[in-house]
Amino acid sequence: MILALAGGIGGSKLLLGLTQVMDPAELTVIVNTADDLILHGLTICPDLDTVTYTLAGVADQERGWGIAGDTFNALSWLGRYGREDWFHLGDRDLATHLHRTALLREGITLTEATDVIRRALSVRVRILPMSNESVSTIVLTDHGPQPFQAYLVRDGARHAVRGVRFEGIEASRPAPGVLEAIETADGIILCPSNPVISIGPILAVPGIREALKATRAPIVAISPVVGGRSLKGPTDKFLAGLGHEVSALAVAQLYQDFLDLFIVDRLDADLLPTIEALPVRMRAAETVMHNLERKIALAKEALSCLASFTT
Amino acid sequence: MILALAGGIGGSKLLLGLTQVMDPAELTVIVNTADDLILHGLTICPDLDTVTYTLAGVADQERGWGIAGDTFNALSWLGRYGREDWFHLGDRDLATHLHRTALLREGITLTEATDVIRRALSVRVRILPMSNESVSTIVLTDHGPQPFQAYLVRDGARHAVRGVRFEGIEASRPAPGVLEAIETADGIILCPSNPVISIGPILAVPGIREALKATRAPIVAISPVVGGRSLKGPTDKFLAGLGHEVSALAVAQLYQDFLDLFIVDRLDADLLPTIEALPVRMRAAETVMHNLERKIALAKEALSCLASFTT
Repeated sequence: MILALAGGIGGSKLLLGLTQVMDPAELTVIVNTADDLILHGLTICPDLDTVTYTLAGVADQERGWGIAGDTFNALSWLGRYGREDWFHLGDRDLATHLHRTALLREGITLTEATDVIRRALSVRVRILPMSNESVSTIVLTDHGPQPFQAYLVRDGARHAVRGVRFEGIEASRPAPGVLEAIETADGIILCPSNPVISIGPILAVPGIREALKATRAPIVAISPVVGGRSLKGPTDKFLAGLGHEVSALAVAQLYQDFLDLFIVDRLDADLLPTIEALPVRMRAAETVMHNLERKIALAKEALSCLASFTT
Repeated sequence: MILALAGGIGGSKLLLGLTQVMDPAELTVIVNTADDLILHGLTICPDLDTVTYTLAGVADQERGWGIAGDTFNALSWLGRYGREDWFHLGDRDLATHLHRTALLREGITLTEATDVIRRALSVRVRILPMSNESVSTIVLTDHGPQPFQAYLVRDGARHAVRGVRFEGIEASRPAPGVLEAIETADGIILCPSNPVISIGPILAVPGIREALKATRAPIVAISPVVGGRSLKGPTDKFLAGLGHEVSALAVAQLYQDFLDLFIVDRLDADLLPTIEALPVRMRAAETVMHNLERKIALAKEALSCLASFTT
């Protein structure tokens, strides 16, 4: 059993690679839910959806979010009614939010609703939300505090980041199955997701970081920073905003208390000596996942790194 | 001020005609809400929506319900999730239900939500739900009791009607503005809607029938039955199922305690002597509203009937 920790787009790419080189039924993924939002009365879980849609083969590959070939007719009418229409809600996508929200109102947990949805879409990978309690990433910007999706989508990530707060994190508990998955995994992979606002909230749920420190499974992470820049999304802005260097090294430092091996891009091979000063092994690989072949190659690399600990 | 009572499709046609021959701002319509339903967590008001869309000029003219040019992508994915997909929910239409449901959850009444929606769509006619309390038409069929939309849409109105029950009607009250509109109207028109399950629930809200009896305004009704058949929808099945004759006469009898004048189709002019045995005046006209000209002509006829009482 392999366990992955993931945010949305970057994480999904690696997960798709993993499903091509191992039995998907042997893969579990813990997904960030701190950028979930409630809009128009609907509970929307962008990272869970991106992971589910990607693994179901229905994701819009170009945009990275939403369902391929979706239309946006409901959204344009929501705008006509003067409702917030900055969050891109496709019509098919809306069915997921309606279904999830209806299930939650019936008293089903987010864990169960996530499972119902992935099974309906024939996804064999087990997808776990990090927590069933509501956690909200608030980005502290030079324009004041903003919920994450408002910062990212509505405001186009243009305001300077000064800090981050995960509202509700203290009261949150790991969702059912999360700690067990960490304890019983044969290997754990941290996907190349934003270490601050995708992997960060997962690690901040009380008990998860401790479980990662305690597990006997080897833990491998892949850097989302390549050549001092984030490949996609605002990882660089968040690292800088929190006073970190924008480098793979900074990511390794954030994980060093539980990490066994860190995969950086070949471009960052020069960081090798510095990272090896940390209690972490290091490997360089092609980490940019342009296409399915690259996803598969990186997935193989991650699995071979994990295997190196058991032989 | 002219007041109309209406259900969905048939009523909307006459209302559209009325807006062409009078100032829409001088027209108020009380709409049936007993066939409302909650589906996927959304409060759906088919008659209110049909009236609003028709008056906004966005209705799908051919189908009679929904928004012109709408897509059904959310619905097809709801079906993929195993949710009920027999009720036709267009994607644009869904925005209305999402908006309404969100407004209601914020504590706004259905009266207010209806007003917000019609104003957003630039409808100048004042649209009032019959009640803010939930009333549900249950059709008693030879296959057991069915909520109205399930009977009509899911089962295609194919089961024999034995009776009708309006759940919640005893506890319902006329929505704000309804009794005032009846008391202060210069004339009242009952649209050619189903007398049992469209106009029937409106009349059954405690206080509304009494207000119609008490008002000094003349009251005109248009028969939805022409030549012994309902032009659209299951009016004939409901009349027969409740033991009435399927004729314009039966409709006149249902309204005779408050009605001043009944407009039947020219086809039914032979009913004249029978209806005039009732305490109701009668007029024959072209009542089939094939096109906008016919809608306008019938609207003029109804207004001229009302005017005949004041001169």
